[in-house]
Amino acid sequence: MKNYIIADEWNIIEEGFDPHLNKVSESIFSLGNGRMGQRANFEETYTGETLPGNYVAGVYYPDKTRVGWWKNGYPEYFAKVLNAANWIGIGVIIGDEELDLNTCKVTDFKRVLNMHDGYLERSFTAELKSGKQVQVTAKRFCSIVDEEAGAISYSIAPINFDGEVTFTPFIDGDVSNADSNYDEKFWDEVAQEAEGNESYLTLRTKKTGFEVCTGSLFTISRTTEGAKVPTYYYGNAQNISKEKYVALVTKAPLLKGETTTIYKYAANVSSQNHKPEELVAACKNVIAMVSAKGFDTMLAEQAAAWHAKWEESDIVIEGDVKAQQGIRFNIFQLSQTYTGKDDRLNIGPKGFTGEKYGGSTYWDTEAYCVPFYLGTAAPEVTRNLLIYRHKQLGKAIENAAKLGFKDGAALYPMVTMNGEECHNEWEITFEEIHRNGAIAYAIFNYIRYTGDQNYLNEYGLEVLIGIARFWKQRVNWSNQKKQYVMLGVTGPNEYENNINNNWYTSMLATWCMEYTMEAIEHVKQTDAARFNALIKQLSFNEAEETRQWQHIITNMYLGEDKELGIFLQQDNFLDKEIIRVKDLPAADRPLNQKWSWDRILRSCFIKQADVLQGLYFFSDKYDEETLRRNYNFYEPLTVHESSLSPCIHAILASRLGLEQDAYNFYLRTSRLDLDDYNNDTEDGCHITSMAGTWMSVVEGFAGMHVQNDTLSFRPFLPEQWISYSFNIRFRESMIKIKVDRGGGAFSNFSAVPVTISVFGHAYTIAPSASQTVKYPDNK
Amino acid sequence: MKNYIIADEWNIIEEGFDPHLNKVSESIFSLGNGRMGQRANFEETYTGETLPGNYVAGVYYPDKTRVGWWKNGYPEYFAKVLNAANWIGIGVIIGDEELDLNTCKVTDFKRVLNMHDGYLERSFTAELKSGKQVQVTAKRFCSIVDEEAGAISYSIAPINFDGEVTFTPFIDGDVSNADSNYDEKFWDEVAQEAEGNESYLTLRTKKTGFEVCTGSLFTISRTTEGAKVPTYYYGNAQNISKEKYVALVTKAPLLKGETTTIYKYAANVSSQNHKPEELVAACKNVIAMVSAKGFDTMLAEQAAAWHAKWEESDIVIEGDVKAQQGIRFNIFQLSQTYTGKDDRLNIGPKGFTGEKYGGSTYWDTEAYCVPFYLGTAAPEVTRNLLIYRHKQLGKAIENAAKLGFKDGAALYPMVTMNGEECHNEWEITFEEIHRNGAIAYAIFNYIRYTGDQNYLNEYGLEVLIGIARFWKQRVNWSNQKKQYVMLGVTGPNEYENNINNNWYTSMLATWCMEYTMEAIEHVKQTDAARFNALIKQLSFNEAEETRQWQHIITNMYLGEDKELGIFLQQDNFLDKEIIRVKDLPAADRPLNQKWSWDRILRSCFIKQADVLQGLYFFSDKYDEETLRRNYNFYEPLTVHESSLSPCIHAILASRLGLEQDAYNFYLRTSRLDLDDYNNDTEDGCHITSMAGTWMSVVEGFAGMHVQNDTLSFRPFLPEQWISYSFNIRFRESMIKIKVDRGGGAFSNFSAVPVTISVFGHAYTIAPSASQTVKYPDNK
Repeated sequence: MKNYIIADEWNIIEEGFDPHLNKVSESIFSLGNGRMGQRANFEETYTGETLPGNYVAGVYYPDKTRVGWWKNGYPEYFAKVLNAANWIGIGVIIGDEELDLNTCKVTDFKRVLNMHDGYLERSFTAELKSGKQVQVTAKRFCSIVDEEAGAISYSIAPINFDGEVTFTPFIDGDVSNADSNYDEKFWDEVAQEAEGNESYLTLRTKKTGFEVCTGSLFTISRTTEGAKVPTYYYGNAQNISKEKYVALVTKAPLLKGETTTIYKYAANVSSQNHKPEELVAACKNVIAMVSAKGFDTMLAEQAAAWHAKWEESDIVIEGDVKAQQGIRFNIFQLSQTYTGKDDRLNIGPKGFTGEKYGGSTYWDTEAYCVPFYLGTAAPEVTRNLLIYRHKQLGKAIENAAKLGFKDGAALYPMVTMNGEECHNEWEITFEEIHRNGAIAYAIFNYIRYTGDQNYLNEYGLEVLIGIARFWKQRVNWSNQKKQYVMLGVTGPNEYENNINNNWYTSMLATWCMEYTMEAIEHVKQTDAARFNALIKQLSFNEAEETRQWQHIITNMYLGEDKELGIFLQQDNFLDKEIIRVKDLPAADRPLNQKWSWDRILRSCFIKQADVLQGLYFFSDKYDEETLRRNYNFYEPLTVHESSLSPCIHAILASRLGLEQDAYNFYLRTSRLDLDDYNNDTEDGCHITSMAGTWMSVVEGFAGMHVQNDTLSFRPFLPEQWISYSFNIRFRESMIKIKVDRGGGAFSNFSAVPVTISVFGHAYTIAPSASQTVKYPDNK
Repeated sequence: MKNYIIADEWNIIEEGFDPHLNKVSESIFSLGNGRMGQRANFEETYTGETLPGNYVAGVYYPDKTRVGWWKNGYPEYFAKVLNAANWIGIGVIIGDEELDLNTCKVTDFKRVLNMHDGYLERSFTAELKSGKQVQVTAKRFCSIVDEEAGAISYSIAPINFDGEVTFTPFIDGDVSNADSNYDEKFWDEVAQEAEGNESYLTLRTKKTGFEVCTGSLFTISRTTEGAKVPTYYYGNAQNISKEKYVALVTKAPLLKGETTTIYKYAANVSSQNHKPEELVAACKNVIAMVSAKGFDTMLAEQAAAWHAKWEESDIVIEGDVKAQQGIRFNIFQLSQTYTGKDDRLNIGPKGFTGEKYGGSTYWDTEAYCVPFYLGTAAPEVTRNLLIYRHKQLGKAIENAAKLGFKDGAALYPMVTMNGEECHNEWEITFEEIHRNGAIAYAIFNYIRYTGDQNYLNEYGLEVLIGIARFWKQRVNWSNQKKQYVMLGVTGPNEYENNINNNWYTSMLATWCMEYTMEAIEHVKQTDAARFNALIKQLSFNEAEETRQWQHIITNMYLGEDKELGIFLQQDNFLDKEIIRVKDLPAADRPLNQKWSWDRILRSCFIKQADVLQGLYFFSDKYDEETLRRNYNFYEPLTVHESSLSPCIHAILASRLGLEQDAYNFYLRTSRLDLDDYNNDTEDGCHITSMAGTWMSVVEGFAGMHVQNDTLSFRPFLPEQWISYSFNIRFRESMIKIKVDRGGGAFSNFSAVPVTISVFGHAYTIAPSASQTVKYPDNK
């Protein structure tokens, strides 16, 4: 754990330059706009430790799989989000000395991520070997208004000399991925050009053939005592051209009392959104458009757009600046990563902040991110995440067929970019099949939240039938138990592999079949023509298939220990030696670094919510006492070595009135990256788990929950805080919730009345009105 | 399956040249002498498909592990037997045309492995592009008399021309392993020299620093109409020197009616057996010695030595030439692979016939090879295999410590060269721990067979205590079962992973503790001083540790299904859908090629004997009805996709009187490589499973078994055969067993009387006498 980020409500601030923290900061201060993302690498040359990263959404490389021992069914490749051409680069030579923070004396270093306005600012004073001192300020952002563009302003003020600076704004496509399996480079050059103050480099990915044109235009201005000298560009720029690299070199004066600023406007346009033959022209259009706006206008538009985003998604915490900073950082990063405009995109575990985990899609999206986007963005955003999976249904059916399933059974991949499985650990790839259930659950959750029942007709049912067919084939009748069993699975708790009758998976599978049957009824009744078309398209034998599903639903084995009153995570879980996490020596933690895999597997320790994940998903089905017994049994065994775990425990602890526990779980994720708890933030931020932090507050502390088409709340205030408040979208309404010592205040910001339930009582709030609800007496 | 090897009692014969079969034949026709081994690659240049292989026993390279997803505890490297310098190479240029079977017309091609005399002969007629025809005969062997040496005679007779041949006998160390993980080469050059007709090349392995000097001396002779022209060497040989390559080039006449022969004497001497600084001198000594003998003398000595080996180990089958060829091939290969003279060596699954599986040591040695060497070789041979493990006890303790075991617990590696674990699949490396039991069982088996009780005192007990300590820590008390359980293991049936309470492993673990306690009593009573020394050395708390072991022995959970009367392969095995192998579609077989891993895991199908392996090991503990019930339950579920499986079933079927079944199982392995059943012989022969074939005949058909210090037999004759006979060593005696239609004839070839049991009756046979026993009436 580190503790170097300075607390602030709206800004992430680093003061002083510590090269050992640089890669961590590069992750934390990352920028993105849903289309592209950029780690907080320096514009100028830096010869110290750095992980360069510019990512273009949806552009990936199928890196040849690395495998120890091959198993049938393993994929041929692992899709990697590519490090794309460096568009931020500006070489800076002062006199004849290169500016490089690794070789000069740096003071007053400060890095600020301004989350309110959506930009990154870095400033420092550097003393070069010659003794020359310069004061540098660099600002940049990835525009959420002009999504293919980014802009940089890079200012130098000489402190103790008059001289000259040589700027080399460049585009460098000769980049590689640090996590390349075979040390290959993934890009080929297609074309390049440079003329005047503009340069363009088009690259094509090997194998996948994505093309990306990166363009740049620079201008230089000088400011004296605040009065701006008219912007002008140095016409004498010299072109430098190398394989996969293009640059322009130009000189400008550096005079005491003046500030010399280079503006670099850049664009990444991709063949995903343009015809390859029009790519360069499209890039030039973007460059022309944004450079015409100019940096200040662009930044003003950026700030306004971010203010609008915050309007919908902010959580305000009074009385705890670090908590405030933490939750805003999480919301900021999530909003940078996915904007919901493109149903071909999804949310990689590291977003645009690093390469790790390949930038592909995991069940994190459905289980953790969907609630966040449902509450903070228009329904289309979540809908596009669902359609992403619908578009990949064919691949999911192919994927299941590779594993021996037939008749249209669909198994969604554990990790994917284009619908094909990328992961190759048999215990995960083939067995962690509960992901299929999470995808069905997200359909249910989306409809429950938005009321968009029509989604079932258009897209949902098709996916549900594929999933139900999979479960039907995945269980078998046990002559021993006289029930259906599900053998050989890995649950959400990946510290158990190849187990039998994982309660979570079996319960979820049963639910999937039930829900599919409900969905069939809905579609039949609301659109018989569509239903008949689906029957044909899917060769769906309604009577026989639903009869089989019903037989499984009725006869599914779901392990329970009656004496303890708990659901059994898996068969024979109680054969294990039961030890509480708190009785483990500190030196043994985290287990995944200290223990060998077999030891972890045969221990009782739980990586992340498993039975409890199920009780979270289906809280309406289980009474509080059942929840309490299971929580009391499993929580003490859970090591939370997945960042996706504490949020679920926070929500359940909240429901059980364990407020301090809930708050502690919240703390474990809210500043996970800011404080680098797991010593791995340098690889990138834990984007998907950030949604869990939001859930901890909204579904945990505020107890928000959808029941019978209304939002219900059971809020409490952590005693460390003065108040917290957030806006929530629900169907046609926008509600603001503020929770303080006295209770909750609920304001209706929408044009229609809204009915909510608080502590079990219904309140209808008129437009623009508020309702205050005190805590019940028994609290 | 292929069917191109010509049936013959003593020879393996291939007629006609099929390039597609070349790599298969290279494996089958491999030569070895326990110190070195050579695939049947051609001496002359061959540009077609080939897998070159020359292996020097014990010389390995720690190839950096390739891994998909790292797990704590995985090894850093996988030890590979190295492809060493090519010593057989002789470039042949006729006129100005290179002889290369890939580019000329080949007729009368014949390859013969003469197992009786221990050499390989290859002959063919080649027509070059120019129309020149030559008749070539090449003979070679790895000497089992001069173990560091090999010799080649390579004869050319021109058919339709007079001309000249250029011979280039070379040593090429610029070789690689086909299975190198990162396409690296493993050898560096240390020195080379060439003068006159001799050349020497010394190479050192990277990382491990083994040095091997390969030397060669050639002579050339001409023979006219049978009269040998005096051997002479061509003094004008030119030296060719390259990095890791040395050769001599010389010319000789090729005259119609004459045969021109080059003899190449070669040696591989290793720093394992010589000081590095004396390596070249040692190599020169060997070369001088063998070249002084000459090829014909060497070959005569080779033949005599092989005749002596056959005297001890042959199995003669009358009435079935293919079966005869098959069993002799297996015995021949086993005898080539391990001679038992060096306790640093062991038996790789491919012996010296290929690279696959790294040439390292597996539990195959203890479970399958030990019975073969016990029956066919002096006790020292097996003893050295046991001492190999004793020497690695320290590493086994380190290995266990890496996985979290303490206090001197030993876990022998799944795969090893020097005692360190090389394998990296968690379900095998960490969980297939029954290998520890096989190592203890081999100690028991060796002592039971040889009567060498003193082995316990000297070596055995130390190993047994390490193993017992491991088992003690590997079980845990189940509050549910109120017994000890063993969670998270993989049994011999690797088609189940991470299962609980594998009957075989748990039973074997319990037995290990029992046997260790017996061994303690033995050592205490026979050598109290040694015992006291061991107590100190091992910090052995006899009272407490044996008390704990006894508690586990008394309270170990061993799964059983009382209704079916069977032992349960693992917890909840009966939850599976039980399907017989014979009801599987043929297209689904072999499962390991057709099914994904998860499907295999949740199926009931068994890769190799598991419960039945236990019933084989401890046949005295279980009555015939118990064996029959388990056999009848598990046999129909067994797919035998390990070559180590059918032999166990053959033995058990024999015991149950299922003679035809036993014979069918025998057939599945006896010609596994000769007929390339699994389409993988090109990678090398299945050396360790060859011992299983021997076991099928001796322990299966002849029903040989040690009971109460005597050999007992229950022979039957497969109806396809006229008779079979074999010699067996047992303690001081050598017995010949011949089984035919009438019964068994037992001849005592030793100087002392021997008592045996046949069909439950004891017979004492005087020296040089025989005893004939008819089949009992109820047969």
